[in-house]
Amino acid sequence: MYLWISETQREMTKPVSGFSRLTKNEKIEWLAENYLSNNENAVSILKQYWNEDEKLQKLHDEFIENTVSNFYLPLGLAPNFKINGRYLTLPMAIEESSVVAAASKAAKFWSERGGFKASVINNRKIGQVHFIFNGKKEKLKDLFKDIEPKLREAVKPITHNMEKRGGGILDIELIDKTSLLKNYYQLFVNFDTRDSMGANFINSCLEKFAEVLQEEAQKRSDFNNTEKGLNVIMSILSNYVPECLVRAEVSCPVSELSEDPNMSGEEFAEKFIQAVRIAEIEPYRAVTHNKGIMNGIDAVVMATGNDFRAVEAGIHAFAAKDGKYTSLTHDKIEEGLFKFWMEIPLALGTVGGLTGLHPLVKLALDILQKPSASELMEITAVAGLAQNFAALRSLITTGIQQGHMKMHLMNLLNQHNATEAEKEELTEFFVHHTITHSSVLEQLEKLRS
Amino acid sequence: MYLWISETQREMTKPVSGFSRLTKNEKIEWLAENYLSNNENAVSILKQYWNEDEKLQKLHDEFIENTVSNFYLPLGLAPNFKINGRYLTLPMAIEESSVVAAASKAAKFWSERGGFKASVINNRKIGQVHFIFNGKKEKLKDLFKDIEPKLREAVKPITHNMEKRGGGILDIELIDKTSLLKNYYQLFVNFDTRDSMGANFINSCLEKFAEVLQEEAQKRSDFNNTEKGLNVIMSILSNYVPECLVRAEVSCPVSELSEDPNMSGEEFAEKFIQAVRIAEIEPYRAVTHNKGIMNGIDAVVMATGNDFRAVEAGIHAFAAKDGKYTSLTHDKIEEGLFKFWMEIPLALGTVGGLTGLHPLVKLALDILQKPSASELMEITAVAGLAQNFAALRSLITTGIQQGHMKMHLMNLLNQHNATEAEKEELTEFFVHHTITHSSVLEQLEKLRS
Repeated sequence: MYLWISETQREMTKPVSGFSRLTKNEKIEWLAENYLSNNENAVSILKQYWNEDEKLQKLHDEFIENTVSNFYLPLGLAPNFKINGRYLTLPMAIEESSVVAAASKAAKFWSERGGFKASVINNRKIGQVHFIFNGKKEKLKDLFKDIEPKLREAVKPITHNMEKRGGGILDIELIDKTSLLKNYYQLFVNFDTRDSMGANFINSCLEKFAEVLQEEAQKRSDFNNTEKGLNVIMSILSNYVPECLVRAEVSCPVSELSEDPNMSGEEFAEKFIQAVRIAEIEPYRAVTHNKGIMNGIDAVVMATGNDFRAVEAGIHAFAAKDGKYTSLTHDKIEEGLFKFWMEIPLALGTVGGLTGLHPLVKLALDILQKPSASELMEITAVAGLAQNFAALRSLITTGIQQGHMKMHLMNLLNQHNATEAEKEELTEFFVHHTITHSSVLEQLEKLRS
Repeated sequence: MYLWISETQREMTKPVSGFSRLTKNEKIEWLAENYLSNNENAVSILKQYWNEDEKLQKLHDEFIENTVSNFYLPLGLAPNFKINGRYLTLPMAIEESSVVAAASKAAKFWSERGGFKASVINNRKIGQVHFIFNGKKEKLKDLFKDIEPKLREAVKPITHNMEKRGGGILDIELIDKTSLLKNYYQLFVNFDTRDSMGANFINSCLEKFAEVLQEEAQKRSDFNNTEKGLNVIMSILSNYVPECLVRAEVSCPVSELSEDPNMSGEEFAEKFIQAVRIAEIEPYRAVTHNKGIMNGIDAVVMATGNDFRAVEAGIHAFAAKDGKYTSLTHDKIEEGLFKFWMEIPLALGTVGGLTGLHPLVKLALDILQKPSASELMEITAVAGLAQNFAALRSLITTGIQQGHMKMHLMNLLNQHNATEAEKEELTEFFVHHTITHSSVLEQLEKLRS
């Protein structure tokens, strides 16, 4: 069962101490000695990705710990996104081929049909103090009522600036979760974090709340010793943000839907709607359907310095909120009009975090005309909707492999160091032949022999 | 409601045609003229991230479409991962601070307590041909029975190499989904794709199945015209892979759990278990709990050239499979032994895709000692479990802001171009003072005045 345990294998290196205190070069040397002794180019591969501008490189090194190089993600541009009447070009950071091309095609298509509409429905962030209280519920309620002003007061140094920007703490609720877990309660807090994603702000507030809550319980004269021992388990924001919702939509007459002379708009609409229904009822399909949406969303999230793990977790949990994992997009025909839309939770920031630090993130926000967080939510949701439209259009017409395999061919040719002339010749050849790893190799060998 | 429509704003650029056919420099010029006219450094910012090695840059440019630069993600190293008895150093590509440090700490901690155990439970990939058949079910069943050998025969050119490597098509089932959607059926196909993630392989097989299925329905003498019109809606792999499961676990005596002299192992275990229970019963917490797991998983997925959107979608849907979104990790105490584990679906590849193309991906796989896909599943699951352990440990002891804010301080100082001397002084100062954006600015100004 444990794959490696039964294998005879050479003794790997011993544990290392104080690794984080080594310099970057020392870390790389240690790595090369211990794990890359068979790869004489290892060190130079890592270093060929360093930026020649030492100061810039240092900036990037300090974003995380134990940095040894820069992992390149291609930054691509998807033009022609008409969103709420305005043309934008979307910066997308993603390693997967076809995503940027598909986004661009969908953008062009919809720009000629009224463009995308997008709007923020609400914008609340959530945080919780999770704690155990072994005592009378009524006493806890009284405590909370009494100390709520103190809680708000205690975080003033943290909320001061956020309040100046119009945000802050919206409300604090005491929630009884004892039916789910013995003695378990929460402070459930709603925040408005304006243009910042707000993770640090929220967590700092919550940890202060937790401190005050425990202190005040200790001081309480009507509490017995067990009650005074109110125990905070943890304090942290939630990445589940169903009240931080954005909607993106497109619509056009059914008759204008198809660009394929062999398919009427009605046929296209029927098949498209079937494809969405299937994703609505069938989780195996819904997961992949939504994965395609995330291709568009994450590429913009990444390029704008936001945290795609937070976005992914919030969106997929939202897709499962009614008990069965389902499609994020929906569609219908109404009075001859095809409508296609999506509502998703999306907690993004355009200030704070990497947005002020990573030069390409700053530039990405410039490309998007310095959006507010709400505008970025709209743009990002549109990227997701566009991606889904493009994927479904391919799936119900040519299939996705046609486009994919063309990219795959180019990648295979690169992998085998094909020259420009070889690339040209084989691209031509494979218009009419099936692309597989072996067929490409075969043709390449033929050319070279 | 539509934020931008009501605003007076300068007319943005017109749509652009033939953008993809422009050269990289022309794309950048167009971008600068149309969207970055206020930013005179825009072009040089994009170009300062180009690699000086033109051939290498061209390779990266061709991974996706409309590439204009390289988006840097820091590549960090997390050493001391003892997995199934072997010490590994994990390459992690991620923009979020604290993740690599937390992984390294958890790795060190568990390396001194027997290390991580991980094992692949099963390794099946899934694909579906979704189609509409308006006719007698029995006739469809007969058709499927008759053509199954033909389906397998038709994909021989595609499966040939995969079969040589021991993989291929495992089984093909006809599934009746008409209770969910009128006339809706599937070919549900299980694949073994060995060390490749297999997306291209699976999709190519499925599209061929779809072609044969429609052709054979047409030819069928016992089908009426409606039945002959069997209509394939789409053919595509599923990113939901509950039969591609990996397990990771750790265990140690409860007494050895705490490194904090103010907390006994028993207290630590109790609080830790409460924290996991909360994530098991409370979706708002579960989403963030699992998000932390994904910090570890995605960083390895990214560094090894795999597709994190696919992994994210599959894992979060799995977390919701029983009708309520819940924790991926679990724990218990058994005979004085604390046990902490996770089982997650994880479809990864170590051949194909970017793995053979991106020099840093190749190197990352070298660092991991050229793992098979199954070994990479184990390593990646361990990264997720380690991350969750580190996060929970921080949350139930010091809180997460202590570590985060230290990183935050460094980022703020960088943002305001602090010198090394200023950094040193303020790091010292903020050991005993609350870090907020304004307090950091204030101290920095004080130093400079």
